[in-house]
Amino acid sequence: MEAKEPLIIRDKSQMRQWSRSMRAQGKTIGLVPTMGYLHEGHLSLLREAHKQTHLTVVSIYVNPGQFTPSEDLSTYPSDFHGDIKKLMSVPGGVDVVFHPHNLYDYGSSGCGDGVEREVRREKEGGEGVVSCLEERGLGHETWVRVERLEKGMCGKSRPVFFRGVATVVSKLFNIVDPDFAFFGKKDYQQWRIIRRMVRDLDFSIEVIGVEMVRDDDGLAMSSRNVHLSPEDRKKALSINQSLSKAKCAAEKGLVNCTVLKNSVTIAILEAGGRIDYAEIVDQESLEAVDEIKGAVVFCVAAWFGKVRLIDNLEINV
Amino acid sequence: MEAKEPLIIRDKSQMRQWSRSMRAQGKTIGLVPTMGYLHEGHLSLLREAHKQTHLTVVSIYVNPGQFTPSEDLSTYPSDFHGDIKKLMSVPGGVDVVFHPHNLYDYGSSGCGDGVEREVRREKEGGEGVVSCLEERGLGHETWVRVERLEKGMCGKSRPVFFRGVATVVSKLFNIVDPDFAFFGKKDYQQWRIIRRMVRDLDFSIEVIGVEMVRDDDGLAMSSRNVHLSPEDRKKALSINQSLSKAKCAAEKGLVNCTVLKNSVTIAILEAGGRIDYAEIVDQESLEAVDEIKGAVVFCVAAWFGKVRLIDNLEINV
Repeated sequence: MEAKEPLIIRDKSQMRQWSRSMRAQGKTIGLVPTMGYLHEGHLSLLREAHKQTHLTVVSIYVNPGQFTPSEDLSTYPSDFHGDIKKLMSVPGGVDVVFHPHNLYDYGSSGCGDGVEREVRREKEGGEGVVSCLEERGLGHETWVRVERLEKGMCGKSRPVFFRGVATVVSKLFNIVDPDFAFFGKKDYQQWRIIRRMVRDLDFSIEVIGVEMVRDDDGLAMSSRNVHLSPEDRKKALSINQSLSKAKCAAEKGLVNCTVLKNSVTIAILEAGGRIDYAEIVDQESLEAVDEIKGAVVFCVAAWFGKVRLIDNLEINV
Repeated sequence: MEAKEPLIIRDKSQMRQWSRSMRAQGKTIGLVPTMGYLHEGHLSLLREAHKQTHLTVVSIYVNPGQFTPSEDLSTYPSDFHGDIKKLMSVPGGVDVVFHPHNLYDYGSSGCGDGVEREVRREKEGGEGVVSCLEERGLGHETWVRVERLEKGMCGKSRPVFFRGVATVVSKLFNIVDPDFAFFGKKDYQQWRIIRRMVRDLDFSIEVIGVEMVRDDDGLAMSSRNVHLSPEDRKKALSINQSLSKAKCAAEKGLVNCTVLKNSVTIAILEAGGRIDYAEIVDQESLEAVDEIKGAVVFCVAAWFGKVRLIDNLEINV
C-alpha cells in the first residue's frame, strides 16, 4: 500500500480552517499531541485514533512553556523528516501534521498593539520558578493550572511542567478543535491532569488514555531514551523490572506501600540510578496511599546519567 | 412588535447541541455572559450582539468561583423572570438564555468515578485566600490565570475574582462555542483580561468591548446599585463627577497622575465614600503611569455603605 502524504500545516488559522471545513462535512477529528522524535508509543496513539475517528491530526511542537531554563529544552531531540516517515508507515497514515513555529508569538494580533517581549531565563527566587517562556509587557501570561493533580510526583521536581502542558494543550484544543484527543498512559499524571482539565473547563473533547509501549527489553519508550548510553540503558531496566516484581508481590498480598516502594528504590539505586520519586497513588486522585486496597498506580521517576526517565504500572487488587 | 420568547436552556450538553446545530446551518453566535439582574448596560451588550451575529445567547449564572466567602455571593440580586422580560423588550430579543443550575457539578461524568466534594468556606490563611467554590477530593480544581493583568486594581482587593472570571468564561466559551463574546467596558480590567486570555489560549472567539451605560445622573449602571440607599446613591455620584472633572483637566494639559488621583480621592472621601483604589493605568497593559502621555484609563473602586462600586473613564491625550 502506498503511504499517504500528510498535509503539513504550520499556521494556526490554516489549522483551524481545515478543522472547520472537515467538521462541516460531518467528519470527526482525533488529535495526537506530541513533541516529535516519534517512537512506537506515539504511533500506537495514532493507531488508536484511527479506530475512533474519521480524520487524524498529529501535532509536533516542543513547548517551551513546560521547561524551566535548567531543563533539557535545548537538547530535546528532533527529527521532523524521520517523524513524517514514521507516521506514513502507520496504516492509514495521518491526515494533518500540525507543526507550528511558535505557538506564543501573537504578533500584533489579538490586542491591537505590538507585543513587547523579553525572555527572562535567568530569573530565580523571588517570584518563584519560571519557564523558558516567561515574558513581560504584552507577552504570553495566561496559564491553566490543575491545582491539586499538578502538585505531586513530576510536579514536585518539575514545577512549571504541568502548568505548561495544560496551557499548551488548551491552545492545541482551541486551534485544532478535535472530537477526541489521545494521550499515553506512560505520562500517567499528565493524562489524568488533561482529563481533569477537560472536565473542569468543559472542553467538548473526549480524552483517551492509551496503554504505554515498551521496548523488547521492557524499557518504557521515550524520546529521551536516545540520550542513554548503552550501559545506562541496561541499568535503566531496573525500573521496569523492579516495578513488575512489586506488582506481582502486591497481587500476591503484599500491600504495604512502604515495603513495596523500598524494594523499587533499592533496586534502582543498586543498579546505579538516582531516584526522583517512587510513589504508589490512587489512580484517580493521585493521592499517596499507605496500603493497596483498590485501583492504584505505582509511579517512578529516576535519573540514569543525565537522563530522567519515568515509568508506571497500574495495580488493581 | 410581538416580543420573541427565548429558548431557556439549563443543561450544558443541550446548550452545546444547540450551538452545533446552528453552526452547521452557517449561523454565527454571539454570547453575552451575565450574572443576571439585568439593566440597560447588559441590554446594550445584547443590542451590540444583534449588530454582529445571526444568533444571540445570554448566559445568566452567578458564578461562585469569583467570590470569596466574605463577599456578597449570598446577597447578589436576582430576578430571572424580570430578566427574561427585559431581554424580550430588546428589538430582536434573544435566541437562547443559558441558565445553568451549577456549572461545577460534574456528577460522575468526566472522570469515571464519583465526585467527592466539600466546600471549605471557612478556610483562611495557610494556603491563601479561597473562593466559595474551593473543593477537595475530585471536585473542581482547574483555574485559568491571566497572571499579570489579574494582579492590580480589583485583583488586589478581590484576590480570587479574576481567576474565577477567567475560569467560568472559559467554561462558557467551551459550552456555548460562540463566534463573538460581548463584555462591558465598565468592567474594564475584566474586559482586558478576557481579551488577553482569548489571545493566549487561542480561543476562536472575537471579544467585543462595549461602552458602559450610565443612568441619567451619571452613575455607572450596576446590578449592585439596587443595594444603595437613596442617600448613598447621591453620594456615589461623586465618583463619576470627579472622574469627569479629572478627564477634562487632563485634556487641558494637567497630566500629573498624582494630582489627578488626589482630586478624585478627595472628592469621593468628602462625599462620604471609602476608596478601594483610584488608579491611572495604560489601557493595554493596565500598568500604572505617572504622567498621561497616551491612551490611559482612570479606574476607581469605592465603597458607599456596604456597596462596592467601580467606574472608569478612558483618557486619550
